[in-house]
Amino acid sequence: MAVRLPRGFRAGATRAGIKPSGRPDLALLVSGLPAVWAYAATKNLAAAPSIHRGRALYASGKPLRAVVVNAGNANCATGERGFADDRRMAELAALRLGLAPEEVLTASTGVIGVPLPVEKVEKGLPQIDLAPFADPFAEAILTTDTRPKVAEAEVEGARIVGIAKGSGMIHPDMATMLAFLVTDASLPQEALREAWRGIVERTFNQVTVDGDTSTNDLAVVLANGAYGEVPLEPFLEALEGVARKLAKAIARDGEGATKLMVVRVVGAATAEEARRAAKQVAGSLLWKSALYGNDPNWGRILAALGRSGARFDPLRVRISLQGIPLYAGGVLPFDREAASRAMGAEEVVVLVDLQEGPGEGEAYGCDLTEEYVRINALYTT
Amino acid sequence: MAVRLPRGFRAGATRAGIKPSGRPDLALLVSGLPAVWAYAATKNLAAAPSIHRGRALYASGKPLRAVVVNAGNANCATGERGFADDRRMAELAALRLGLAPEEVLTASTGVIGVPLPVEKVEKGLPQIDLAPFADPFAEAILTTDTRPKVAEAEVEGARIVGIAKGSGMIHPDMATMLAFLVTDASLPQEALREAWRGIVERTFNQVTVDGDTSTNDLAVVLANGAYGEVPLEPFLEALEGVARKLAKAIARDGEGATKLMVVRVVGAATAEEARRAAKQVAGSLLWKSALYGNDPNWGRILAALGRSGARFDPLRVRISLQGIPLYAGGVLPFDREAASRAMGAEEVVVLVDLQEGPGEGEAYGCDLTEEYVRINALYTT
Repeated sequence: MAVRLPRGFRAGATRAGIKPSGRPDLALLVSGLPAVWAYAATKNLAAAPSIHRGRALYASGKPLRAVVVNAGNANCATGERGFADDRRMAELAALRLGLAPEEVLTASTGVIGVPLPVEKVEKGLPQIDLAPFADPFAEAILTTDTRPKVAEAEVEGARIVGIAKGSGMIHPDMATMLAFLVTDASLPQEALREAWRGIVERTFNQVTVDGDTSTNDLAVVLANGAYGEVPLEPFLEALEGVARKLAKAIARDGEGATKLMVVRVVGAATAEEARRAAKQVAGSLLWKSALYGNDPNWGRILAALGRSGARFDPLRVRISLQGIPLYAGGVLPFDREAASRAMGAEEVVVLVDLQEGPGEGEAYGCDLTEEYVRINALYTT
Repeated sequence: MAVRLPRGFRAGATRAGIKPSGRPDLALLVSGLPAVWAYAATKNLAAAPSIHRGRALYASGKPLRAVVVNAGNANCATGERGFADDRRMAELAALRLGLAPEEVLTASTGVIGVPLPVEKVEKGLPQIDLAPFADPFAEAILTTDTRPKVAEAEVEGARIVGIAKGSGMIHPDMATMLAFLVTDASLPQEALREAWRGIVERTFNQVTVDGDTSTNDLAVVLANGAYGEVPLEPFLEALEGVARKLAKAIARDGEGATKLMVVRVVGAATAEEARRAAKQVAGSLLWKSALYGNDPNWGRILAALGRSGARFDPLRVRISLQGIPLYAGGVLPFDREAASRAMGAEEVVVLVDLQEGPGEGEAYGCDLTEEYVRINALYTT
């Protein structure tokens, strides 16, 4: 099911030999027109050269024309050489596309601490065929993901297509999450940039435990205006919808995961506290293990809420799971067998009412399985 | 190997039937003399009634005579009834010992959200034989721990004995950690209380990922003065040594763990930043998984340092593992096979030099294994 990119965008990928598996690992995403863009990246102090470069490009305020991504090597913690290699990757992509290097954003994902084989990037780039479809690009940026992640929306004729990769694990500190959203809507750059921060906060950053991110994470949206203007509010709503779908897809495809966990917190003092509480639950290893075992052990949810920093009265909070009330300021009688059966679904929803105020928020996670440990015990070797 | 308690202390335990396994689960620790004490407990908002009660006793500044502990039931999230049950447990222990309830500290550990079977406590207390040994008490307070945790020290004739239980998992949010330290030294209560905060911060709290604690965690020290006065500084040093031994024992006995991880950070801007950086590494799921697989994947250590909030320059930081340098501001050549073999030890030491300042600190953790997931996927059912 090929997904067509918005007007004026093309993409493609190749097998450059960076992934030991030999799978596609080098990809280009190109806009025929200069695109306004908004960007969010990891706050990790050990951020990769691609992140430092992206921040500098972003600060310039200049439009973007292309993104070059390699998977299989994060080009992080590779010393001064890593910065030169990252610049070189941008220059090579610019050369291939007839652009200036400053019009090309770089992104890398994969193992940390191994120099980027730039010669493979150099050989690979000319092999990339560009076409108006998202799929080869979506495939090539994956690492331990088990499936590509693409989502789309339409707003009064303009289109939005989002492509992401997860890290497998929903913990923030686990992996590189990359998200590329493109639209042919014509948008004021400042409005897009301002809105993007909030959208990322409510979607991609809620796939993480504590707002922490990997060394290479980034989420970027490019708007090339090929379609024309659309009303801003509905557009931003649709953009957030695409981002949320990708965020959920990343959580669902957590390393070793068997199911998606959606934690919805209502009744918090503020939306920020709701998101924080939801994230703490989604990131609790004990609760994630219980989720895997279909064990409705709500005590672990309460314990996670209690350390989240969100304000509430333990004697008033309410917790339900798949619509089944489990706790209401005290022990509730509930059918443990039925609750356990309900946890066998592919998507499990935890609903928490803190009964403090109007704040609402969600977080997205997955269960913790033996397979997660197996995958991560032997990644580099 | 029975461990004798300091002068004037006695302890004992019984099988009250609170643990489904039928193992000992109710324990008393008693001082013949009123003891000055220092206390640290969880900051979790959903703290158990025993914690609320302990805080109130602590604030009163009055001496303590006894501790009653049950394992198998945390008496947390049990509504108003939980508070009454906790008071009742103190009253019953006081009755058994001929003390006032305010002289008895309570502690509970185990499953959350199940009412405490106080009638079992009532029946069990008279069965407890008190003797001047730590062992039956140390055995009875365990939950998923695989072995008792006792440490001792002597300071100019005075003795210190510490007894702890872990939660299995080194994550803070995982479990209840209880630690009881007793000494026959005569100490000024205020000096002990002030020192205890720092000691707990550097030892028990460094067994956790982010300073978060379970609903029932506590660490308490009782000094009954039966031996007499000792110089304060050497005493506090010995006290910290006992606390550190217990902290390491808790980490080493992490649920499903095969080895102890000691993360030592030097060269941090401050000691607090050193501890924070060390904890972030000790708590990284990716690094814990790599540790299990004997995979010297130092990129995960660097990524954890980068999100810790500690200041450093990624191009200057140094990382070594079991004495083998792995990273020095750039990729180092190292013998991967030898590093992997060195990780097979029972205790693995990660040394990080941030090259920023004089701050030093340690954290204690363990590896993440499939067994951890299995243990926690089916705890209540």
